[in-house]
Amino acid sequence: MKKLINDPLDIVRESLEGMAAAHPDLIKVNLDPAFIYRADAPVTGKVAIISGGGSGHEPLHTGYVGKGMLDAACPGEIFTSPTPDQMLGATHKVDGGAGILYIVKNYSGDVMNFEMAMELARSEDIRILSILIDDDVAVKNSLYTQGRRGVGTTLLAEKICGAAAEQGYSLKDISHLCRRVNINGRSMGMALTSCTTPAKGTPTFEIGEQEIEMGIGIHGEPGQKRMTLKSVDEITEMMALSIIEDLSYRRTVREWDEDKSEWQEVELINPPFQKGDRLLALVNSMGGTPLAELYIVYRKLAEICQKQGLQIVRNLIGPYVTSLDMQGCSITLLKLDDEMIRLWDAPVNTLSLRWGL
Amino acid sequence: MKKLINDPLDIVRESLEGMAAAHPDLIKVNLDPAFIYRADAPVTGKVAIISGGGSGHEPLHTGYVGKGMLDAACPGEIFTSPTPDQMLGATHKVDGGAGILYIVKNYSGDVMNFEMAMELARSEDIRILSILIDDDVAVKNSLYTQGRRGVGTTLLAEKICGAAAEQGYSLKDISHLCRRVNINGRSMGMALTSCTTPAKGTPTFEIGEQEIEMGIGIHGEPGQKRMTLKSVDEITEMMALSIIEDLSYRRTVREWDEDKSEWQEVELINPPFQKGDRLLALVNSMGGTPLAELYIVYRKLAEICQKQGLQIVRNLIGPYVTSLDMQGCSITLLKLDDEMIRLWDAPVNTLSLRWGL
Repeated sequence: MKKLINDPLDIVRESLEGMAAAHPDLIKVNLDPAFIYRADAPVTGKVAIISGGGSGHEPLHTGYVGKGMLDAACPGEIFTSPTPDQMLGATHKVDGGAGILYIVKNYSGDVMNFEMAMELARSEDIRILSILIDDDVAVKNSLYTQGRRGVGTTLLAEKICGAAAEQGYSLKDISHLCRRVNINGRSMGMALTSCTTPAKGTPTFEIGEQEIEMGIGIHGEPGQKRMTLKSVDEITEMMALSIIEDLSYRRTVREWDEDKSEWQEVELINPPFQKGDRLLALVNSMGGTPLAELYIVYRKLAEICQKQGLQIVRNLIGPYVTSLDMQGCSITLLKLDDEMIRLWDAPVNTLSLRWGL
Repeated sequence: MKKLINDPLDIVRESLEGMAAAHPDLIKVNLDPAFIYRADAPVTGKVAIISGGGSGHEPLHTGYVGKGMLDAACPGEIFTSPTPDQMLGATHKVDGGAGILYIVKNYSGDVMNFEMAMELARSEDIRILSILIDDDVAVKNSLYTQGRRGVGTTLLAEKICGAAAEQGYSLKDISHLCRRVNINGRSMGMALTSCTTPAKGTPTFEIGEQEIEMGIGIHGEPGQKRMTLKSVDEITEMMALSIIEDLSYRRTVREWDEDKSEWQEVELINPPFQKGDRLLALVNSMGGTPLAELYIVYRKLAEICQKQGLQIVRNLIGPYVTSLDMQGCSITLLKLDDEMIRLWDAPVNTLSLRWGL
């Protein structure tokens, strides 16, 4: 393994120190427990948005801390959930008195640890709601999840909810909005190569010189199927149709009910895509795939959507949810409404995304 | 070789088609000859800035077309200079009547073909000046150059000159500014792995599992020396000190003299870095190196600069001048003055860079 690192155990800390040194105008870093937060936190009277998860997916989530997006992000060790003390520390730091939303990707460890942090914070009378992101159509369950994994829709939810918080939305309204983004977003990924985690030092999985893995997870966990290498047009079509033709997906999730002060089982149903839908299309690099290839993916995706009567009205093309050095890409389609478009277009100022001049 | 492509011969065209489909509000694409230009070109009364070079370095240059930066970019085939008809086509399209500046990276093919385009355009009475970027301290000459190669300083010059053009600077003033950026910028790169060009299909060079190449070029051309893998702190120090301790570099370049209407040999000298200098630091991924590792490089770079009495006042960290899928990074330091800082901070709207909220 060759990486630009010192000791594999120091990667997350040293990377956070680099961020702190580079962007003192935007963010501050707390090292123990580890979290990164807006330099101007807490913003009094504003709902705070916190996310987090294993490291190795940068810029998700640390790169999305800043005005108009996340108030704080809690990075775990590489591909490892952050611990409840990280979320609790971040919660104390960014609590502006209007409540806090946790945006949680659906991986068992993340779900458990965010829930534990919520219990701890609630015992201090801090208002917190949480929304689970489970948008990966490739698998019903995986090594790390009950139900679908949370991938590309996460950052779209972070952007849209971050804008809503900035505009003074209430905690309850933002949580409903976040849930709406989640059920309207769908993703699928594929890999040409494996990632290599620094701790292990060898590729996470073996893959032949003429093979690809369809439906890959962002930790290198297996997807739908192994197949022989195909043209980018064929690969794009397989991913796009898996997303577009995905039927209603019904499941129950645990959400905190503020009125009843207890956990409730909430039934969620993803509505299917329909002719005339307006979409945000995210074409995402898994890390090692260059921009030029992503635009070839986008070219085919735009053609497919047009044929299906789906209208891409916003797009995002680049490395946004990565898997270390993995080569491959993912596609996320989010069905937009007027409110989501307005919030998407709102200005944002993070170290990785500066929309809306 | 596994890449997200159809036919290797179609990569550049299909990627440009994807860009055109994705960003019609920002850019337009001409396919034959190939160039990409601002959607609102020509901007009457504004100096137009054009750059270009071989593809495979994205987002350089195509990603930098837009308000506040380039008016047009001419992408050659992968690692191959664009041809004069591309630059001439772009010149006709973006000429706003106030003259045109070509920003040219110092590679023999680029220099020759941009010069040929200038001759053709001048025969039509279009005013054009050109500035060469030669900022790579690793080598005095290389496979592709007479003198130092042009790398990271190129996009800094494109940004600063693009802002100046937007603010109504004259052609002569912008060309002087561009030259000042060039002589105040220095870069050095290194590679952990080789890139793989789609046409060849195998790695450009062999490198052992415990080896790195210091001073690598952005086409995978050899650098200063092959050495055993070191810690990122050691690697960063070697690169940073090569840049910071680089002495005055004296050479003559060919520039067009408008008053005399002839080519002149101009002597250029890079001033050495000095205590108290204010710097822009660019930590650039060669393509396959993740963001987290770049921040560990930045962490050490900031420490080294501080020790040397150099003050980093602006930074840029990410994949900006890539070499396909190569793993590795480069550092560029640019000595700033008040005018450059003001122009750097001006808003820009390109598909890859949206500074200055």
